[in-house]
Amino acid sequence: MVATDIDVHTPAPDPEDPIFALHRGGKMAITATVPLNNADDLSMSYTPGVAQVCEAIAADPEVAHEYTWVSNTVAVVTDGTAVLGLGDIGPAASMPVMEGKAVLFKQFGGVDAIPIALATTDPDEIVETIVRLAPSFGGINLEDISSPRCFEIERRLIERLDIPVFHDDQHGTAVVVLAALFNALRVTDRYIEDVKVVISGAGAAGVAITKILKTAGVTKIAIVDRSGVVHSSRGQLDEVKQWLADETADWARPGSVSDALSGADVFIGVSGGTVPEEAVASMAPDAIVFALANPQPEIHPDIANKYARVVATGRSDFPNQINNVLVFPGIFRGALDVRATRISEGMKLAAAQAIADLVGDELTESFIIPSPFDPRVAATVARAVTDTARREGLARRPY
Amino acid sequence: MVATDIDVHTPAPDPEDPIFALHRGGKMAITATVPLNNADDLSMSYTPGVAQVCEAIAADPEVAHEYTWVSNTVAVVTDGTAVLGLGDIGPAASMPVMEGKAVLFKQFGGVDAIPIALATTDPDEIVETIVRLAPSFGGINLEDISSPRCFEIERRLIERLDIPVFHDDQHGTAVVVLAALFNALRVTDRYIEDVKVVISGAGAAGVAITKILKTAGVTKIAIVDRSGVVHSSRGQLDEVKQWLADETADWARPGSVSDALSGADVFIGVSGGTVPEEAVASMAPDAIVFALANPQPEIHPDIANKYARVVATGRSDFPNQINNVLVFPGIFRGALDVRATRISEGMKLAAAQAIADLVGDELTESFIIPSPFDPRVAATVARAVTDTARREGLARRPY
Repeated sequence: MVATDIDVHTPAPDPEDPIFALHRGGKMAITATVPLNNADDLSMSYTPGVAQVCEAIAADPEVAHEYTWVSNTVAVVTDGTAVLGLGDIGPAASMPVMEGKAVLFKQFGGVDAIPIALATTDPDEIVETIVRLAPSFGGINLEDISSPRCFEIERRLIERLDIPVFHDDQHGTAVVVLAALFNALRVTDRYIEDVKVVISGAGAAGVAITKILKTAGVTKIAIVDRSGVVHSSRGQLDEVKQWLADETADWARPGSVSDALSGADVFIGVSGGTVPEEAVASMAPDAIVFALANPQPEIHPDIANKYARVVATGRSDFPNQINNVLVFPGIFRGALDVRATRISEGMKLAAAQAIADLVGDELTESFIIPSPFDPRVAATVARAVTDTARREGLARRPY
Repeated sequence: MVATDIDVHTPAPDPEDPIFALHRGGKMAITATVPLNNADDLSMSYTPGVAQVCEAIAADPEVAHEYTWVSNTVAVVTDGTAVLGLGDIGPAASMPVMEGKAVLFKQFGGVDAIPIALATTDPDEIVETIVRLAPSFGGINLEDISSPRCFEIERRLIERLDIPVFHDDQHGTAVVVLAALFNALRVTDRYIEDVKVVISGAGAAGVAITKILKTAGVTKIAIVDRSGVVHSSRGQLDEVKQWLADETADWARPGSVSDALSGADVFIGVSGGTVPEEAVASMAPDAIVFALANPQPEIHPDIANKYARVVATGRSDFPNQINNVLVFPGIFRGALDVRATRISEGMKLAAAQAIADLVGDELTESFIIPSPFDPRVAATVARAVTDTARREGLARRPY
């Protein structure tokens, strides 16, 4: 899901607390899908029968994709450095989130996902470890790895592996934001090429949103971090922020988030910061506000609604919840179904369009994005991914 | 299970073949153990509720053992170098065996096991990879890693990790062999201190059996490889064989397997080689023959029965099947239940005794070991392990 800030709770677990009671023993289990009730069963599923399957794979590695669980599996891998809004809480403390992600993969995409929390934060070690694990998995979902390390780790893994590698905090967020933006623009009757967009947050999500918006045709973007608009004039930018400054140089001007929002059409908050009411009031008519910080949006939706025509958050208790769970199950479902070699920009754009299209004639200012529980979502996203994979020559299996 | 040789089959998979049909799509799946049907469910199992659990673990890592699935999980890790009797077939081709092992863990021990086949055979890389994975698992079951690399890898992992590390090809085999030997000696009315034992096979299983037999009190052991009895006089022994030569120096004399068997009480074959009928005929009265190579025992049980009083194999279609599945599910069940820091020699001995004791008054020459489907086995082994862990101060959790 989108970057989240959490209230400070008392850390000691209360076994009577419904949340702790629910999490006791973990949230997932392994089940056998073959019978194991007698010696005949064992001789089929295990020795000596299994040797036939091993030999067939040794002779032709493609056989593994039909006769093991590998091609339906995704490793959900973190190093525990950027978990929700909690930050660098380490691998052990990240496991409840990774398990949660894994069961969402199964519930919404039918994907068997395995939570893997690594005892290293070194990018070289993370990359080498995942490369060595790769024969066991059909795909790699990177999760909650801090910026800017996440960019290098993902890039190197994509280069090294021939299975899909997808950092959900980047691309899942970017795809669902783009889907929501498509419909917000449709309901406000504007073209994506024309709108002025301010993104608050220059981390994993902000970078990926910038990329996908540019690919989708947005030309006027300013990206804001704690020091204001990211701009070359600030000097001392790191590699990622220099890239952002270059990518947004056409429109972004030095200043504060309030300066940037004056006359802007779209605000996308993925920062956990706040935005003054006056700044939202200064936006262009029919403004679009995606305040995605959780649980405290950058501006409360009741305030934003006074000035903006479309308001979305990351929360389920307001209209227009922008939620990554609309994306990652279907993206991997589709990629695994055709054994895609990677998740391309084309697949992400197609997924965003497919999610937006599901709203159809029901589109209103307060219904720009389907519910995560709309049962059509994952299959529709998967179909968009498989179609695109075939068209782009990235599908290794006919579907 | 015990080292296995397999007939050469045609490698191309036949989808109509019952074995390939059974293995299609793999043999296991992930299931969610929490409801995920509406927004309330998601807010409990995932954001924002999950953050409370993460924070509690960050404040006290012990909390992870109650509120994640980690403490019920075992990684079944291989590098694909010694798979069944097939040898070095690589990680992809090893996956059907690792999945089979994983589902046996669940079926017999209630343990959630994850198959991990690594794309490296370098011991340093294997050790580092598993150390980095460790926060995600409650234990590590090493599987089908070739000798002598398996010894160093296991030793280094035990030193580095505070969770159980168990190379089943060594210790699972050793425990079940010792269990069978306890009862074979009882039915033939002999003491373990007195018997002369010949082990054929100086790999993972042979080394571990030598160790456990010495711990259990056997003093007269000869170990045989393709070049005959392992003995210092042969010269040019590698580190492991020199260790075996030193450990067996009291009784072992240079010669062939036939020389060694003359007058011996016990033969334990874990080699895949063959033993001449005349050699078995030359053993002491009331001889015990464990011919565990699969599917072809070192000597056919019908031949062995002409001379030996107790004959066991690795096969389910003869009496006295000696099968690792009697061991590893219960060993890990017990170790996980008390969060044992490691699997000690005492636990292995206790497990062997517990398995032997289950036979009780039913003991005969053709019933020295329980069936793998005896529902008491795993719980009994687990109890032996937890009792021993507490006694030895290796239990981190009261049971």
